[in-house]
Amino acid sequence: MKQIETLSWVNAPATSLGSTILNFSTGYLLMLDQTLLPQELRILECRDVETIWEGIKKLRVRGAPAIGIAAAYGLCIGLQSLFTANQIPTESVFFSKLTEVADYLAGSRPTAVNLFWALDRMKAVAQSGRGKEPVTTIAIRLLEEAKKIHEEDRDICRRMGHFGATLVKNGDGLLTHCNAGGLATADYGTALGVFFAATEEGKSIHVYADETRPLLQGARLTTWELKERGIKVTLICDSMAALVMRQGKINAVFVGADRIAANGDTANKIGTYSVAVNAKAHGIPFYVVAPFSTFDLTLHDGTGIPIEERDPEEIRRGFGRQTAPDGIDIYNPAFDVTPSELISAIVTEFGIISPVCPESIRKILLERKIGKS
Amino acid sequence: MKQIETLSWVNAPATSLGSTILNFSTGYLLMLDQTLLPQELRILECRDVETIWEGIKKLRVRGAPAIGIAAAYGLCIGLQSLFTANQIPTESVFFSKLTEVADYLAGSRPTAVNLFWALDRMKAVAQSGRGKEPVTTIAIRLLEEAKKIHEEDRDICRRMGHFGATLVKNGDGLLTHCNAGGLATADYGTALGVFFAATEEGKSIHVYADETRPLLQGARLTTWELKERGIKVTLICDSMAALVMRQGKINAVFVGADRIAANGDTANKIGTYSVAVNAKAHGIPFYVVAPFSTFDLTLHDGTGIPIEERDPEEIRRGFGRQTAPDGIDIYNPAFDVTPSELISAIVTEFGIISPVCPESIRKILLERKIGKS
Repeated sequence: MKQIETLSWVNAPATSLGSTILNFSTGYLLMLDQTLLPQELRILECRDVETIWEGIKKLRVRGAPAIGIAAAYGLCIGLQSLFTANQIPTESVFFSKLTEVADYLAGSRPTAVNLFWALDRMKAVAQSGRGKEPVTTIAIRLLEEAKKIHEEDRDICRRMGHFGATLVKNGDGLLTHCNAGGLATADYGTALGVFFAATEEGKSIHVYADETRPLLQGARLTTWELKERGIKVTLICDSMAALVMRQGKINAVFVGADRIAANGDTANKIGTYSVAVNAKAHGIPFYVVAPFSTFDLTLHDGTGIPIEERDPEEIRRGFGRQTAPDGIDIYNPAFDVTPSELISAIVTEFGIISPVCPESIRKILLERKIGKS
Repeated sequence: MKQIETLSWVNAPATSLGSTILNFSTGYLLMLDQTLLPQELRILECRDVETIWEGIKKLRVRGAPAIGIAAAYGLCIGLQSLFTANQIPTESVFFSKLTEVADYLAGSRPTAVNLFWALDRMKAVAQSGRGKEPVTTIAIRLLEEAKKIHEEDRDICRRMGHFGATLVKNGDGLLTHCNAGGLATADYGTALGVFFAATEEGKSIHVYADETRPLLQGARLTTWELKERGIKVTLICDSMAALVMRQGKINAVFVGADRIAANGDTANKIGTYSVAVNAKAHGIPFYVVAPFSTFDLTLHDGTGIPIEERDPEEIRRGFGRQTAPDGIDIYNPAFDVTPSELISAIVTEFGIISPVCPESIRKILLERKIGKS
């Protein structure tokens, strides 16, 4: 099985005096360009924040947890230009730049809350040192924090996979939508992590992957990840999910999430809601797999989640030929919100939340999170 | 508004003696190649039955009624080679060729029953003259029958449009799946005929068109037809239908059909079933619009309808770039069956069938059909 690394940080070699600063200021991010998969495996070297912003915007890096990690590293890269062998910024310049870069990155995509969560966590680390530590130390601690977010995500994915696998029986047919795998996270994935964990436990499964229009993350990425790991996968068009459910081929649905409100309403890739309605109609459990960082407890319910609308050309001229006339109206929301009543359970790194309601979410997340930290 | 002619028959000029035979044997079918729309408007001249078979198989002509018409003309073209200025076939040769050509055309696509209905109707015309009329007369009557099937379909579409428009209110948002318009019929359409008729009656409507993966008939054909007629249309991906329903944008769904069993179970383009489940979940009426020729009263219910499975490459390499890895399993059914309990009404040329059950179907279809003929 090939290791799929979405993101990795490269430390340039330290040279002389101020080597830690040089390490901070000369590192860069390697990003697998997911828009070219499965035909081409190209790694982008991100040495400026604009490249990372564009990478998030254009979905070269995608998946809520991976976006958070990229943004954390992006903040470090955005601050690098302040540090040279001859110059260290004042605290005021440093924090002004920090705010500017964080705001810039936050504007790349509006729905995945992990982006804001990661930037907030980074800003909190910087603030905790303000007025107490030199900016060089704060800069180093920011890079350490970004690496920690990255490293933690691997561990979180494994824990979610472990909990989620308890919901999978040997011989199950499982449906997923979009890509919530190693490519969407540090590695291993959220929904796909459940499939990987179940397989590692010796369970035999058959995954049905929705192709996920318009950008076909299911066709391009999910099938590729499952094939790499030797898991039986059948690709279907999104419109076929209801049929395979009716045919009795699906025992459970597992999807990722981009933002979850306090009541459990879940924003995820467009089409997820349709899958959830169909799962309900066919009596099939519908599971969301997402880490703590995906929850936005400031939102009472899903109505407050901003839904990104993307370029209509993604639909009109998706993958080669033009397939719809010029001059017609096209609606291209990138996400939809599945109401909590359609969700059987949410699998987190702290355990399984079921039933999905404000009380159970608060209980699992806040008690266990606070208990841990 | 541009007239959309899917199919038209061209009579070559009569020359001398035996001019009616020459008219039969030198006519040909013009077919709009729908696979190239909306980018290219190319007309195919079909002068042999293989071209028509390939045209049906490859969806150059598509839509259940249009397939029936093409097959009827195809049967005439398949018999033409028997007739030359110097030669008229024996009755035995004629009927042997008739069976051969009809079987060949029937093998082009398995689901749309209009194909078999049209071929059966043509064969019945031929049989009625067997032993009584010269084959030259039978041949001429076959061409007349094909033209009659063609001409009748225009009238049937208008009548369905008229009945269906009574279900549409001014200001309605209406969803459709695939293409059931002028391109799928002689002209005017089934589901789209309802939209055209409602608009002609002065009702303002807003149509949401599912793009309809994998071959994108909704994106390529439906939006084009609606735009040509000046009807407000918004293109969405199939997976977005549930969302626009939840947003309250849809007042009713209208779709065509490829085969309807005696209990009302309806085979139509893959994805129709998912739309029907979602319509039910959102309390939105779901209407099927189809002529008498689409009913297969020999089938008790939808389980007996054969579902065509098509080439996985339609999904893997749809419109340019390869978008799924080689070597993975792909499921590509061309149709699904919507059970009658999800269908609010079926609009036919004889009136509206509601509730949809064996009794109401028999009553409307058989009584009125027999009453007419």
